[in-house]
Amino acid sequence: MILVRPQLAENIGAVARAMGNGGLFHLRLVAPRDGWPQEKAWRNASGADRILDLATIHPTVPDAVADLHHVFATCPRPRHVVKPILTARGAAAELRLICARDLRAGILFGPERAGLDNDDMAAADALVRFPLNPDFMSLNLGQAAMVMAYEWWTAADETLPRALMTNETAVATKAELETFLAHLTGELDACGFLRNLPKRPGMVRNIRHFFQRGEVTKQEIRTLHGIVTELARGRRQLGRVEREEQS
Amino acid sequence: MILVRPQLAENIGAVARAMGNGGLFHLRLVAPRDGWPQEKAWRNASGADRILDLATIHPTVPDAVADLHHVFATCPRPRHVVKPILTARGAAAELRLICARDLRAGILFGPERAGLDNDDMAAADALVRFPLNPDFMSLNLGQAAMVMAYEWWTAADETLPRALMTNETAVATKAELETFLAHLTGELDACGFLRNLPKRPGMVRNIRHFFQRGEVTKQEIRTLHGIVTELARGRRQLGRVEREEQS
Repeated sequence: MILVRPQLAENIGAVARAMGNGGLFHLRLVAPRDGWPQEKAWRNASGADRILDLATIHPTVPDAVADLHHVFATCPRPRHVVKPILTARGAAAELRLICARDLRAGILFGPERAGLDNDDMAAADALVRFPLNPDFMSLNLGQAAMVMAYEWWTAADETLPRALMTNETAVATKAELETFLAHLTGELDACGFLRNLPKRPGMVRNIRHFFQRGEVTKQEIRTLHGIVTELARGRRQLGRVEREEQS
Repeated sequence: MILVRPQLAENIGAVARAMGNGGLFHLRLVAPRDGWPQEKAWRNASGADRILDLATIHPTVPDAVADLHHVFATCPRPRHVVKPILTARGAAAELRLICARDLRAGILFGPERAGLDNDDMAAADALVRFPLNPDFMSLNLGQAAMVMAYEWWTAADETLPRALMTNETAVATKAELETFLAHLTGELDACGFLRNLPKRPGMVRNIRHFFQRGEVTKQEIRTLHGIVTELARGRRQLGRVEREEQS
């Protein structure tokens, strides 16, 4: 990531933190307004110190990109420019391909107030425009870097969009669920909840639908067995007391 | 977005700004540490004032989510939890589906230092874990909100990952490119650049490959014609002078 004429050291720190989050490590600074190093940057980096320690300083954009093979430039509102324009996701995918070919790429971020100027953009192969609300495009530098770092990481990530988090237990099989449903309906028959025989099949089906709706874990099946057993205990004890009284 | 026990007003402002960027407008605050309202939040919101003006304050998470139908909870390192876990992208897609059904959904963000506690997470239908560098998971609250707001916007965005940005001109057709290539090779024949006849076909092919590599606009074709004409002018003038001298 290459910050062009960044104004606030806090933002440089926030960018370093975002880079750490996204697994990016090479930070370049072009003519930071208030000089370098600046303590505020480290204070705002929440431990991404190494990225700041190794950041290089450059007087101009051409100097900062001299050893790179590809340069992208973030630009919220490009005008009068004839240049490929990528989404953040498209840019991340292309950056991954470039790096897979052992080429070096950089992405330019403009100064907080004005963004990159026309000469900065002419130094880039392609522009990057995040799709975001066109009615509120004022993007914080650290947050812009976060989106790009996140997309960079995500481009190589294979996490499923939805999974069940189970550290200690596994998903129950249908047979385990069936055993529980038999236990439950047995107790519901015994206590009289299902005594309306014409309605019984529909009621059992509705109960079945409810317990099938989400994935159930083996531990939860055990807990549900326990709940049914405990709830039914009173009726059993009552039955025993009644039998003793009768005898 | 629901911020649970947020500590820093600056971060509440940064979250409001990220929400504006992502087209989200309903902010709820559960027991902000330093009270509410706080001027620093507005100062850090860069114009997303309306989101802060309309933010509601709640004493507890259950109070903040009472009117919602679905609740997601961001959680970088879930442990000992049996709960669906979504990526930021997966969560955005599900939130879009929920809203399309006219149901109300909220997403919980924990306090800066400790994140959501186990009771907060038990109030959620699903957890959201952004895929990010596991070696550097310290995520700023404003930046975390930015990722989620960005994914929310992007889930409904149809921008092509790569396009050519042309405000004033259109992509040239192959015939326009061909006319230019004929102009160029004509001048190169005339100036002697292609005088090695056995090599000429290969050289012409290489030139053709170069000009075909990227999309060329109609305006650029006009500029290229001008460049070739101007570069060849000297040779033409020289020829005229020589002819005059000979006559």
